[in-house]
Amino acid sequence: MTNILILGGGGMIGQKLAHHIAREGWHGQPASVTLHDIAFPPDGAPAAQRITGSLADTDAAEKLVASRPDVIFHLAAIVSGEAEQAFDKGWQVNMFATWNLLQAVRAEHEASVGSYRPRLVFSSSIAVFGAPFPERIDDEFLTAPLTSYGAQKACCELMVSDFSRKGFVDGVSIRLPTICVRPGTPNKAASGFFSGIIREPLNGQEAILPVPDSVRHTHASPRSAVGFLVRAGTMDLDPLGARRSLNMPGLSCTVAEQIESLREIAGADVVACIKPVPDEAIMKIVEGWPRDFDPSRAKALGFEAETDFAQIIRTYIDEDMTAG
Amino acid sequence: MTNILILGGGGMIGQKLAHHIAREGWHGQPASVTLHDIAFPPDGAPAAQRITGSLADTDAAEKLVASRPDVIFHLAAIVSGEAEQAFDKGWQVNMFATWNLLQAVRAEHEASVGSYRPRLVFSSSIAVFGAPFPERIDDEFLTAPLTSYGAQKACCELMVSDFSRKGFVDGVSIRLPTICVRPGTPNKAASGFFSGIIREPLNGQEAILPVPDSVRHTHASPRSAVGFLVRAGTMDLDPLGARRSLNMPGLSCTVAEQIESLREIAGADVVACIKPVPDEAIMKIVEGWPRDFDPSRAKALGFEAETDFAQIIRTYIDEDMTAG
Repeated sequence: MTNILILGGGGMIGQKLAHHIAREGWHGQPASVTLHDIAFPPDGAPAAQRITGSLADTDAAEKLVASRPDVIFHLAAIVSGEAEQAFDKGWQVNMFATWNLLQAVRAEHEASVGSYRPRLVFSSSIAVFGAPFPERIDDEFLTAPLTSYGAQKACCELMVSDFSRKGFVDGVSIRLPTICVRPGTPNKAASGFFSGIIREPLNGQEAILPVPDSVRHTHASPRSAVGFLVRAGTMDLDPLGARRSLNMPGLSCTVAEQIESLREIAGADVVACIKPVPDEAIMKIVEGWPRDFDPSRAKALGFEAETDFAQIIRTYIDEDMTAG
Repeated sequence: MTNILILGGGGMIGQKLAHHIAREGWHGQPASVTLHDIAFPPDGAPAAQRITGSLADTDAAEKLVASRPDVIFHLAAIVSGEAEQAFDKGWQVNMFATWNLLQAVRAEHEASVGSYRPRLVFSSSIAVFGAPFPERIDDEFLTAPLTSYGAQKACCELMVSDFSRKGFVDGVSIRLPTICVRPGTPNKAASGFFSGIIREPLNGQEAILPVPDSVRHTHASPRSAVGFLVRAGTMDLDPLGARRSLNMPGLSCTVAEQIESLREIAGADVVACIKPVPDEAIMKIVEGWPRDFDPSRAKALGFEAETDFAQIIRTYIDEDMTAG
């Protein structure tokens, strides 16, 4: 039985990944899933084990890796906004905890005389990129982040690649686009409105749109994100060579196109819940974000995202509204 | 008086930088130079203070930064070959010591209520790039290193940029090409032959050439390297925006062109000291190295290197052979 460890297993994506594995198994076979996070939702995804704690705690990584999981998903992170405000905490959790995880894996690798070399899937982010950039970012564009979060993710990618090159781990970093539509209550992330302008109107609530509807951004649904993770966890990584960071595909569209899709699916009354309230601070942040990608490598490796925004809305309705 | 701290001040470039400052001053004014390194050459460059120790020692960075130097040159590193063999040591010295340095600067910045914000010049390397790459690497090409040394340098660049963006330090990372001609005795670096095939013949000794003479590489003299550092230490960094890593200019030429320059300057008898002894292992390493750059940003900012290899040879003869 495949032992799978999901760090950040209490979060939205971690939970959906655990649900997916419970439903589909791993390579079609049952798997034993251990979830680790600082907290878990009530009535959460099934798991063989739930471990509560911070990956930044002393010895946390060593203890988690001691059971030698076959596959490790590392989704745990301080989010962008918090990492920007809490400088030390951001670097400690987002970078040093990843370093500790990699060192713990290496220690088990060496204790096993090289036989233990787990698959590690690290969830990175398009925040590793910073403006100015071309209209479409290709697979050879530099990582020049404009946030501490992005810098921390970019450092971790370099470590995952180097530990993999040395043979201590079989790792890959996948750079996720903005996940949309995020279920649940609105959060204070600057990107929150991309989900909010769909989710709130569908639930009969007002949603604030802080940017012009000409803003272009790249999205993928939570279902696509889980698909990326599963593929990254099961695929042969040798074709990647030494470049083990991959830009994930996503759907690039404008806010106007998002709204038009919502109108087609749910009607003008629902769209009327969107209230434009320009916010200079959010506009400034959003201007620094990538608009579109040409993720040729990931596409050639079979990674797939939605091809129109209506699919993204329907995934939310199907997966989260009916469940909620 | 400007207080200048040179970490790695006992090394070849650190010593040449200290000599330069002793001769030219800093912005034409006298400066007080503190050198830090694990060892210093006898009869070395003049300095107000020489401190012996490792930057990786506990509290080393705090103690060095406590005197609030105005300018910090961080040239200290475990070299590429050693970082590849001694994995932990490489990351500890090349990455964690830089982290400690940045945190020490930040602590003084905060203790000074923001008034202390020194210039930091970090010596990075073209080792942050890894094959495959285009014939000429431009300023937006990704950092995908193929060595631990390159990964460590790339991580440090991200930290220097993030600490600078947050205003804790006024930092810049300069990516040096291969420095040629290195004075002194041959070392075991895979790149050593680029200097060896000039230096040894000029000194009447045999030099081994382990690669075909069609190999193309980018070089700059130690004198140019010192020029890069001084410019990076004195220039206004605001035009860099958030992208504080710069590819330095260099002279791209083939080994055959190197040898032809040597023939023109020193004659056929000297060139006859070069003995081709193909070495598959070195050829494999060299194939992974950049061949040429288009360092437009650095050039626009006034960074200059040699424009033909004969200048590089003459710089060695002028600066190191006559001195030695």
